[in-house]
Amino acid sequence: MPRNRQNEDSILQKIAQGSRSSQSREFRHSVPLGIGDDAALFRPMAGHETVLTCDWFLEGTHFLRAKHPPDAVGWKCLARAVSDIAAMGGIPRCFLLSLALPETHTDRWLELFLGGLRRASHKFRCALAGGDTTQRNEILINVTVIGDLRRELALRRSGAREGDLIYVSGMLGEAELGLQLLRRTKGFAPRNSPILNKHLYPEPRLELGRWLAEKKIATAMIDLSDGLSSDLARLCSASRVGALVEGGKVPQIRLPHASSKYAANPIQLAFHGGDDYELLFTVPPPKAKLLPKTFQGVSLTAIGKITRSRKVMVLDEQGHATQLAPRGWDPFRRKL
Amino acid sequence: MPRNRQNEDSILQKIAQGSRSSQSREFRHSVPLGIGDDAALFRPMAGHETVLTCDWFLEGTHFLRAKHPPDAVGWKCLARAVSDIAAMGGIPRCFLLSLALPETHTDRWLELFLGGLRRASHKFRCALAGGDTTQRNEILINVTVIGDLRRELALRRSGAREGDLIYVSGMLGEAELGLQLLRRTKGFAPRNSPILNKHLYPEPRLELGRWLAEKKIATAMIDLSDGLSSDLARLCSASRVGALVEGGKVPQIRLPHASSKYAANPIQLAFHGGDDYELLFTVPPPKAKLLPKTFQGVSLTAIGKITRSRKVMVLDEQGHATQLAPRGWDPFRRKL
Repeated sequence: MPRNRQNEDSILQKIAQGSRSSQSREFRHSVPLGIGDDAALFRPMAGHETVLTCDWFLEGTHFLRAKHPPDAVGWKCLARAVSDIAAMGGIPRCFLLSLALPETHTDRWLELFLGGLRRASHKFRCALAGGDTTQRNEILINVTVIGDLRRELALRRSGAREGDLIYVSGMLGEAELGLQLLRRTKGFAPRNSPILNKHLYPEPRLELGRWLAEKKIATAMIDLSDGLSSDLARLCSASRVGALVEGGKVPQIRLPHASSKYAANPIQLAFHGGDDYELLFTVPPPKAKLLPKTFQGVSLTAIGKITRSRKVMVLDEQGHATQLAPRGWDPFRRKL
Repeated sequence: MPRNRQNEDSILQKIAQGSRSSQSREFRHSVPLGIGDDAALFRPMAGHETVLTCDWFLEGTHFLRAKHPPDAVGWKCLARAVSDIAAMGGIPRCFLLSLALPETHTDRWLELFLGGLRRASHKFRCALAGGDTTQRNEILINVTVIGDLRRELALRRSGAREGDLIYVSGMLGEAELGLQLLRRTKGFAPRNSPILNKHLYPEPRLELGRWLAEKKIATAMIDLSDGLSSDLARLCSASRVGALVEGGKVPQIRLPHASSKYAANPIQLAFHGGDDYELLFTVPPPKAKLLPKTFQGVSLTAIGKITRSRKVMVLDEQGHATQLAPRGWDPFRRKL
């Protein structure tokens, strides 16, 4: 495309095109005005609160242009922002996309990126409502997701009480293992590698989060984006409590033979690996019997309990308790 | 601060601190959960629609680290996003801040930036509800503003009809002149220079936008962020109409003597200069008498009318009509 036609309006049109065809009647009702005006309009449901979150997804910090397939970038930038809605027990409704791109990436790369984004948008029933684009040497993404849920149902980080049981969904450390393998791979990640799948195409636990909120089972919840050690510390700090985790109960991956020479050990991956987007939540003991062992195929595992002491401790299999330092992902401490 | 303590949580705390003290009871009611959880909660008013917009504000593209004072960066990143709410006739309620910073900028620069941001937040009655921070070599900002207005009142770009009069608020080209002068200044912009004021500390026309929507006077509206020639073309395109602008009526600045050697001529500044954040709106002739000459000290000027032809034309003082090409700011065509 000639340089002078490749302007902001035409890029916005490309972004808008595919998104229109996937819009349901439900979406058109709740978002009466989407892309193409100064702002979008969202029509909240009576008796509902709106849930708002935004997330950076930056080349070099959160993904690598030379390793992450553009459609995985598109999927993951929305999936991780939607995970914050899941962590409140909310339902995603629509999102805003801020995208900065090099001019060289406004054709093929953009189309593949939009393909992954649209698959995620369809899967999470969360349609594009607007955004902002600009030109930049690096690929910069920011996603704002707008969700909702019935008043007073939102699950905050701050509701955990002494004696509550601590649960996690799924398996921890898998995304971090995928990242470690990817960093040692030459060139692009293969698209259909099962071991990279959780790192490239995470699935936020929307149905589980919603169910826990609607049934009023959990007292506090957070999504595991930075790693169990960091995110459990955040939940405890917000709730002004501590935790005692039984190390042996934390659901860890079994390392495939080929990966064992690279990776840290499974318990380290489970404690400090980021990007799993599983849910961490607390449940008062009398309500624990309401929890199934698995929810829609995802295991739910009790890993410890909330304590009064304000410290996060881990009990090893010999019965020794040591303090668990928050050593998960922190962009102000280390980079990808 | 020692390197290992300067982490994401402590930066979030710094951002949160000042914002709490400025929160009104009204804010605490409409945003029952702000900074510090996975997402923020916004409680919409019955019968209202939510207005959503997001805006990039990037070092090197939208501002220069070595020239723009940090408090102007703080003010302007919110002001320009709030202007999109004004352009719909909405009332800003809260915002999300995504901020990426070099580690060297997490002390003094961040404090000055937050100072400007808080002044803007207070002025526009739009409080910080959440956000995301990360580390980066360059300063990257993205602001999402959440506003609202009564159902069916929103002023879209698409409502202009043949024969409607075209109005602009204020004076055009002043911000672009400020930018041109700033680019020729060595080092930082002086904070209290009147000629740089509109470029550094723009004032979105919130009260005017709201009044035009509530009184149902305007048929279409857009804010002038990229320049009259580009933004009028967008309004016309959305409304499937054209425009005839009388060049002599466009409110232009008088160039101060000292600046005349640098700047383009006033009419070029008025047509193509960006960043004014004035409102451009259309009014059916019978309603024009309801418009005052000035609104809260800001002039309202009729500059032409909407035509059927789909072209944007300018009539010069000799009565010659020529087509007005959209030559305002376009990040995919030129950079700052």
